[in-house]
Amino acid sequence: MIQKLPSTLLENAVNELSALPGIGRKTALRLALHILRRDADYAEKLSASLLALRREVSYCIDCHNICDSEYCAICADPRRDHAVICVTGTIKEVMAIENTSQFHGVYHVLGGIISPIDGIGPADLEIDSLVNRVATGEVKEVVLALSTTMEGDTTNFFIFRKLSPYPVKVTIIARGVAVGDELEYADEVTLGRSILNRVEFNSF
Amino acid sequence: MIQKLPSTLLENAVNELSALPGIGRKTALRLALHILRRDADYAEKLSASLLALRREVSYCIDCHNICDSEYCAICADPRRDHAVICVTGTIKEVMAIENTSQFHGVYHVLGGIISPIDGIGPADLEIDSLVNRVATGEVKEVVLALSTTMEGDTTNFFIFRKLSPYPVKVTIIARGVAVGDELEYADEVTLGRSILNRVEFNSF
Repeated sequence: MIQKLPSTLLENAVNELSALPGIGRKTALRLALHILRRDADYAEKLSASLLALRREVSYCIDCHNICDSEYCAICADPRRDHAVICVTGTIKEVMAIENTSQFHGVYHVLGGIISPIDGIGPADLEIDSLVNRVATGEVKEVVLALSTTMEGDTTNFFIFRKLSPYPVKVTIIARGVAVGDELEYADEVTLGRSILNRVEFNSF
Repeated sequence: MIQKLPSTLLENAVNELSALPGIGRKTALRLALHILRRDADYAEKLSASLLALRREVSYCIDCHNICDSEYCAICADPRRDHAVICVTGTIKEVMAIENTSQFHGVYHVLGGIISPIDGIGPADLEIDSLVNRVATGEVKEVVLALSTTMEGDTTNFFIFRKLSPYPVKVTIIARGVAVGDELEYADEVTLGRSILNRVEFNSF
């Protein structure tokens, strides 16, 4: 391993870069030396873009998705169905669902899921603001699209309970055997869910 | 793949990050979202360190290694043998050799090796400055420590020719079977070199 770097400037850059996820000291050094080799313009643009991202980023008032103005492009789009809200844990999950082009409602980003081990309780998430959106009476359906983990299930149940006083339909994304998967190798819980939640053959 | 990002700030950051080697759009997005999640202080420190690295970095007047002042720590160290110069292609190779703790002379970083395919000729490298260092008459030995490739061999030969008018010993690092390698699986060129360059049993 690289123990001592010949320059404190390089050392600082490597230290900061290696704090990024999946970037070790060796990769950080490679990135830093790459930045040195490229023209000065690139370093300027890279650092300016990272700084601007962190300083100027804003979150949609309605759905808490990342955006450039008060409302995100999805919430501001009149063609989207504002009566259907899809609840996700992170911004990345919104992007994943958007890429499917199968959802035409709007989103609500919780900013995580309930996870006592990580010290994340319901109060740290955007659950109250979801309830407020539903309380306006304009929402017909809330689609729960959280990860299929213990934490995801806990969060789903918590939201379901919180929304129970309101006349809103709460649905959850289908769990089952992935498209392209061999039935033989599917785990029994997933396969069991697939059978329980079977749909009419012509409905998909 | 992630096609459209919800914010131009995020888009810019992802574009700049994905220009780094080994960082694709997906990893770049992961890094950008990580920077967003961490406190603002980290983004400030990261971008400042990258900017400082590119703007303020300097190279040693003697050996062209990266450093913080006029001379690098190695060239400035009076305990190092300034009569022995190890020639490397890159800064990283200097670090690799330093990590072995087996070399006590000084270095000369060429800034690459002769590679016509990449458009790198002798004039693009710090070869003239090496000849100037040798021309002072204070250098007794030049150790060639370039990569064992066609380009490395070409560069070695070019430097050897350039240094031939001077009374300096030119050596090259040993090539042979790596420590820990099975003889059976060593390629014949390497094994052949190992046999040709055999040393006295008690000399290592």
